[in-house]
Amino acid sequence: MTQAPARIGDLVADIDTPALVVDLDAFEGNLKKLADFAKASGVKLRPHAKTHKCPAIALKQIALGAVGQCCQKVGEAEALVRGGVKDVLVSNQIVGVHKQRRMAALAKDASITCCFDNAELVTQTGKVAQEFGVTLGALVELEVGMQRCGVPAGEPVLALAKQIGATPGLKFRGLQAYYGTAQHLMAYEERKAAIGRASEAVRTTVELLKANGIACELVTGAGTGTYEFEATSGLWNELQAGSYVFMDTDYGRIAGKNSNRYTDFEHSLFVLATVMSVSNPGFAIVDAGLKSYSAEKGVPWVHGLEDVEQVGISDEHGKLKLGPRAKKLKLGDKVMLIPGHCDPTVNLHDWYVGIRGGKVEQIWPIAARGAST
Amino acid sequence: MTQAPARIGDLVADIDTPALVVDLDAFEGNLKKLADFAKASGVKLRPHAKTHKCPAIALKQIALGAVGQCCQKVGEAEALVRGGVKDVLVSNQIVGVHKQRRMAALAKDASITCCFDNAELVTQTGKVAQEFGVTLGALVELEVGMQRCGVPAGEPVLALAKQIGATPGLKFRGLQAYYGTAQHLMAYEERKAAIGRASEAVRTTVELLKANGIACELVTGAGTGTYEFEATSGLWNELQAGSYVFMDTDYGRIAGKNSNRYTDFEHSLFVLATVMSVSNPGFAIVDAGLKSYSAEKGVPWVHGLEDVEQVGISDEHGKLKLGPRAKKLKLGDKVMLIPGHCDPTVNLHDWYVGIRGGKVEQIWPIAARGAST
Repeated sequence: MTQAPARIGDLVADIDTPALVVDLDAFEGNLKKLADFAKASGVKLRPHAKTHKCPAIALKQIALGAVGQCCQKVGEAEALVRGGVKDVLVSNQIVGVHKQRRMAALAKDASITCCFDNAELVTQTGKVAQEFGVTLGALVELEVGMQRCGVPAGEPVLALAKQIGATPGLKFRGLQAYYGTAQHLMAYEERKAAIGRASEAVRTTVELLKANGIACELVTGAGTGTYEFEATSGLWNELQAGSYVFMDTDYGRIAGKNSNRYTDFEHSLFVLATVMSVSNPGFAIVDAGLKSYSAEKGVPWVHGLEDVEQVGISDEHGKLKLGPRAKKLKLGDKVMLIPGHCDPTVNLHDWYVGIRGGKVEQIWPIAARGAST
Repeated sequence: MTQAPARIGDLVADIDTPALVVDLDAFEGNLKKLADFAKASGVKLRPHAKTHKCPAIALKQIALGAVGQCCQKVGEAEALVRGGVKDVLVSNQIVGVHKQRRMAALAKDASITCCFDNAELVTQTGKVAQEFGVTLGALVELEVGMQRCGVPAGEPVLALAKQIGATPGLKFRGLQAYYGTAQHLMAYEERKAAIGRASEAVRTTVELLKANGIACELVTGAGTGTYEFEATSGLWNELQAGSYVFMDTDYGRIAGKNSNRYTDFEHSLFVLATVMSVSNPGFAIVDAGLKSYSAEKGVPWVHGLEDVEQVGISDEHGKLKLGPRAKKLKLGDKVMLIPGHCDPTVNLHDWYVGIRGGKVEQIWPIAARGAST
């Protein structure tokens, strides 16, 4: 683990760079907004820790009413439980006896639930849970349009639910129904229609299970791009949004309900960089590149500087182009970059530096950074 | 730092995934090939640690004759010096007093050289070196075509070289002349022509410096795509290649001298993944995504499996398509993926798992993982 790039009380200008910076006002506003929405909608909120990977943030979400956390990996669940989170849903298939044992061990200290789309996996996981003398919650993952994991609606879900019900060490809790690829559809109406189609798969499946005497305590899913559709569907009773805490350019590009811009949440996550070369006229080179933000969604947006855009990336450099209206950038100037994709960007850093009013107010370790197993 | 995903002696099938795996036979072959080439060419080899970020690998390169290491960041230099490397070139501009102090502190234990393309930076860095009572080696970075950092050939270099010569705490050593964007030009002849153009900038500058009584002890540069051109130019006397130890799909796509394939070095770096879902017919989902390999150069290549290709990526999932000739993949099967870009992929992992003959033989910490400041 690297050293933190700042100390509490430092000026922003004195943060060592590149650094992952959180605008605390925007961040706290995002947390409160979705917490309030969930309460008003009568659905539970279980934010996704795959975004922030940080128990300190998880505990803030829980303090505002979240029922626990989602995560994708056992390593993330370990960091969360060790950081004080008592209820974790691993919203993923956990394959392999080493990982299953680690998950079962965690179930001694917290409520742990995971997902299934395969009968063999049910048998294996149940066996490990029994060895450890624990009960793991079990959701069947329903394929709702993403074509990744999950079984089709109806009979395949019923078969797995019955098997889980008959497996000691596992307790059937309901459905994992997350439509990942719907989150970034550009138009509001497209996203709404996608969740409408997913709703049909959920509805018919819940009804089939009910007709067979199997209740779904949980129907969980939704992300930052579609949460309001799931919340008002009458089907989902738990929201898994993650990116809402930070936002990124990928969410910044989608349209809102009555606007070309999606403004439900504010950008609160930035990579702070320093101008390290000004020898190329009309350009400025900053000290943050592919090792400080993920770029599969394109270059970062430059925040708060008129007519300056990033036009190139190397491993450790970013190339900014200064347009005719741009203020000249000097060696040592700080620049705030909005990353293309928040989750893999966070995964590059060991520390959040929380800032307010131009000063460092919080430093939080990203405890699950790199926890990919 | 995460726990290592394997123990020495484990079978490859028992490695927890995702894991960053090094094929030791291929890796050692790559190390030896470039070391032998440099010796035969009469140039020094100073491999770039920005690729591997690992003192254990640096020491192997040095044992084969390398004069030291390059790196891009002070944090990388810290990891190298603490790991036993005695001669480090930070092939980059180091801006800001915190970083300059860290670099000066390292110069108490090792020979440290860095780059300059700005007069103000020379003054600042010299001052810090004097405060610490050390001498830092200084190269002028020459712009040879990349249009990133560096000053133009000729007079601008002479001016900086003179300033460095007159600055206590700094010692002028020569030129940093690296043409990054030439490395991945598709055709061998294109790469050769690019380094030919860069050679002119180097030649005229070295001559101008000489005419002014300033000798270039070092002319350093070159990468995995162009090293033979710099080595045979009669101008460069040190090679900085880094990716040659591992290769990646980005280098895998360029052409060789007499072939459509570049075969100077072998792929030795893989992300080992596990099949975690087979519920979607014709596809297999593996447990490695954007948090296990960088994808700005596209999806990884699937290694050693006929008619299987990766067609999708999520944060924690990879989607493999099985063609008509593909062998069926089962839950728990291991898959080796060749990453698109080795440097930022390495930066996601804490450990190398070195394998030979189907077993884990070495586990090396990636000490400079995340060392971006």
